[in-house]
Amino acid sequence: MNELIYEQPLNEKTRSYLRLEYLANQLQSNLDQDHQHRCFYPLFSLCELTERCDYRTEIIKDIDKQLITLKKWQDLPHIDEAQVNEYIERLQQARTQLVGCERPGQKLKQDRFLSALRQRFGMPGACCNFDLPQLHYWLAKPWAIRQQEYQSWIANFQCLLTPIKLLLELTRKTTSYNPATAVAGFYQGSSNQALSLIRVKLDAKQGCYPTISGNRNRYAIHFVLFDQQKHSDQTIDFMLATCG
Amino acid sequence: MNELIYEQPLNEKTRSYLRLEYLANQLQSNLDQDHQHRCFYPLFSLCELTERCDYRTEIIKDIDKQLITLKKWQDLPHIDEAQVNEYIERLQQARTQLVGCERPGQKLKQDRFLSALRQRFGMPGACCNFDLPQLHYWLAKPWAIRQQEYQSWIANFQCLLTPIKLLLELTRKTTSYNPATAVAGFYQGSSNQALSLIRVKLDAKQGCYPTISGNRNRYAIHFVLFDQQKHSDQTIDFMLATCG
Repeated sequence: MNELIYEQPLNEKTRSYLRLEYLANQLQSNLDQDHQHRCFYPLFSLCELTERCDYRTEIIKDIDKQLITLKKWQDLPHIDEAQVNEYIERLQQARTQLVGCERPGQKLKQDRFLSALRQRFGMPGACCNFDLPQLHYWLAKPWAIRQQEYQSWIANFQCLLTPIKLLLELTRKTTSYNPATAVAGFYQGSSNQALSLIRVKLDAKQGCYPTISGNRNRYAIHFVLFDQQKHSDQTIDFMLATCG
Repeated sequence: MNELIYEQPLNEKTRSYLRLEYLANQLQSNLDQDHQHRCFYPLFSLCELTERCDYRTEIIKDIDKQLITLKKWQDLPHIDEAQVNEYIERLQQARTQLVGCERPGQKLKQDRFLSALRQRFGMPGACCNFDLPQLHYWLAKPWAIRQQEYQSWIANFQCLLTPIKLLLELTRKTTSYNPATAVAGFYQGSSNQALSLIRVKLDAKQGCYPTISGNRNRYAIHFVLFDQQKHSDQTIDFMLATCG
């Protein structure tokens, strides 16, 4: 066991970004390793989320805000100018791609194979041989071929996922961890600056996980003992980062 | 690519059995290899199906029917008596276990960790770090530990799944394949004896998969070209088994 990082978004936008980032990581993991039919779960989740909401405008606004901040930093002394410049470039590239792309996931809607699968995937045990003979056929293709096809499907979401990962990377990088102590398994904090994300780093050896709640100015952390699934009454040392 | 077997149940009971057998195979595959959080999908599907329907009475009836058939066979000449006896013994064992067990999946309902996960697993992208910090904690446990826990969860369904696998094995074993030819991508057949399962064996090289429909006395097979997702108009040679 090792140090685990738990994150809690404090606003809807960050919540969406984290969810999309999580799905992006899942897609990557399904591309790296053959998880058979299981690879379709995050793909269909992304289809569903991007149909419900077009995230592009919000992301572009966020990129522009970040670019203004980064450009201000360029003039500061003691700043790693090369790194700042690199981020500016990556953000600008991601912005260009996002502005130029059609609505992510739109093309996959026309894919008859994926559409047939998607209708079934929500039902319990419904990707049986007889429910979806075409899936049975597809899964018998060599992994290298399936990998290529999967790559082409997930490429539809790349213009959306790349800037999200970049924005979250910047959010995380610009706040460092400080030691904190929960008394009787509880910790609370507040901030005058609006917060978007709470991060808790905790050794799994402590046997507990945090449940975090809050809004932009206040947050509370309860630690729960995993084995007993109840609140801890212990003093718990952890590392805390509160991101703006 | 190689020979693929496609199956189509022709009644509701066989449909349920095949679905449960499919989930049993999924559980096993998740026990053999670490598929991380993906292992919960078939587990929760089984929870859902066994809550909707108590399959035990039906299975016991089927075991008893099979035992009568097998005992008749014992007296026939040219029969592999050792194998028949082995099946009788396995069926009797499975029957005893099924009669003795409580309703499968019942115990898992009281597991707070699994219940919390299950509520979330149907939602798109909802097994994020922040949705389920307890899952994040669990996934950081060593695979050997998770494997043990998974084993203990799926053990709850063993008394149900063992006889189903056995019954389907007998259904499949007692019918052999015969060559058949679909003209213009279509084949139909009928039977005076009630059928429960159609099996089609087809080389993946043919580039198509069968869609099968039917009832206890009649069935039709349409072959669909995978790449074009449309009905084939070719002559297709395949192997066919129609199980009673």
